[in-house]
Amino acid sequence: MATSVVPFGRPRGERADAARNRELLLATAREMIAEHGAAKVTMDGLAERAGLGKGTVFRRFGSRAGIFRALLDADERRFQERVLSGPPPLGPGADPVDRLVAYGRARIGFLLDHQDIARASLDRDRPAAVAADTTHLHVRVLLDRAGVRIPAIEGVVIQLTAALEAPLLLALSASEDVPPLEPDVARMLGDGWQYLIERLVR
Amino acid sequence: MATSVVPFGRPRGERADAARNRELLLATAREMIAEHGAAKVTMDGLAERAGLGKGTVFRRFGSRAGIFRALLDADERRFQERVLSGPPPLGPGADPVDRLVAYGRARIGFLLDHQDIARASLDRDRPAAVAADTTHLHVRVLLDRAGVRIPAIEGVVIQLTAALEAPLLLALSASEDVPPLEPDVARMLGDGWQYLIERLVR
Repeated sequence: MATSVVPFGRPRGERADAARNRELLLATAREMIAEHGAAKVTMDGLAERAGLGKGTVFRRFGSRAGIFRALLDADERRFQERVLSGPPPLGPGADPVDRLVAYGRARIGFLLDHQDIARASLDRDRPAAVAADTTHLHVRVLLDRAGVRIPAIEGVVIQLTAALEAPLLLALSASEDVPPLEPDVARMLGDGWQYLIERLVR
Repeated sequence: MATSVVPFGRPRGERADAARNRELLLATAREMIAEHGAAKVTMDGLAERAGLGKGTVFRRFGSRAGIFRALLDADERRFQERVLSGPPPLGPGADPVDRLVAYGRARIGFLLDHQDIARASLDRDRPAAVAADTTHLHVRVLLDRAGVRIPAIEGVVIQLTAALEAPLLLALSASEDVPPLEPDVARMLGDGWQYLIERLVR
């Protein structure tokens, strides 16, 4: 019953309008974050700048945290597309160990770039919005292709997944007034990741 | 000005009473969790069973989440005492690699045992209550004693810390109606941890 999301009597164009409003609101939120940081984005400010009513923002996202979850979801999808069909070594075609190293470095960078948004996407009912499922699956497949077949593999994969989510964990544990991690933390964590992987597959 | 926490005019015994109430409330909360799980503990229910007013519960803990943070803090201190002065290999005196392996297994068990409490200790202002600082320091010191001196050490230590916090991360990401992880997950994660450490120090 896919049509049940459009209540009876609404104009045919409603869903296209809704999608356009959603894209406009996300683009506007990105501008506001780039200019003043995530903490300054409010539902009122977003509605005003996008030239829409506050009711529209509320219907699209439900809450302030919902805006940030939608931004995170959209960027997450783009990231996964680069992994599934982008150029190697992040995308397919490279040696599995090189792909694991590239994935870790890219993922750490992604999470560090999204610390603010991830922090702002928290609310009482959904404490951590980023799903680690795709990382878990990707790491397991690539370790298998790299010939790492050990009894402890499942624990190792969960721990490597958690290792990649470390920047996020740090960001989520901090209170809002703790400054985000420095960008060169990405290199430090990337080097750590590469060292772990090289030790594992040796 | 340590005395400033006791407002002028209060009876001399006030602080001792407050400490007794706090211990009584924590012991009562533990009983309730053991019997019916963390989800069933309410501030009203706790006050009634402890034979105290709801105002007393509120003054001691501030919120429902505050009760669980206090429980977690108390257990966390006991855990750290076992690491600092308990019997080896978790406590001092054993080979650093054996201590690292023992620490990981004990920590994973601790976090799995405390999933419910950790989940219930979340609220909007303090999304993740467990501090990973002591794990971070302990892992760094023991890796150093084990002779692991590499340029990427800081990244590796952060990632190993995150690896140990994996059960917690999984618990916190799940919504309240997802069942806690099975106890034998502890063995799987402990085996994964031991494999990672043995590969690192080899």
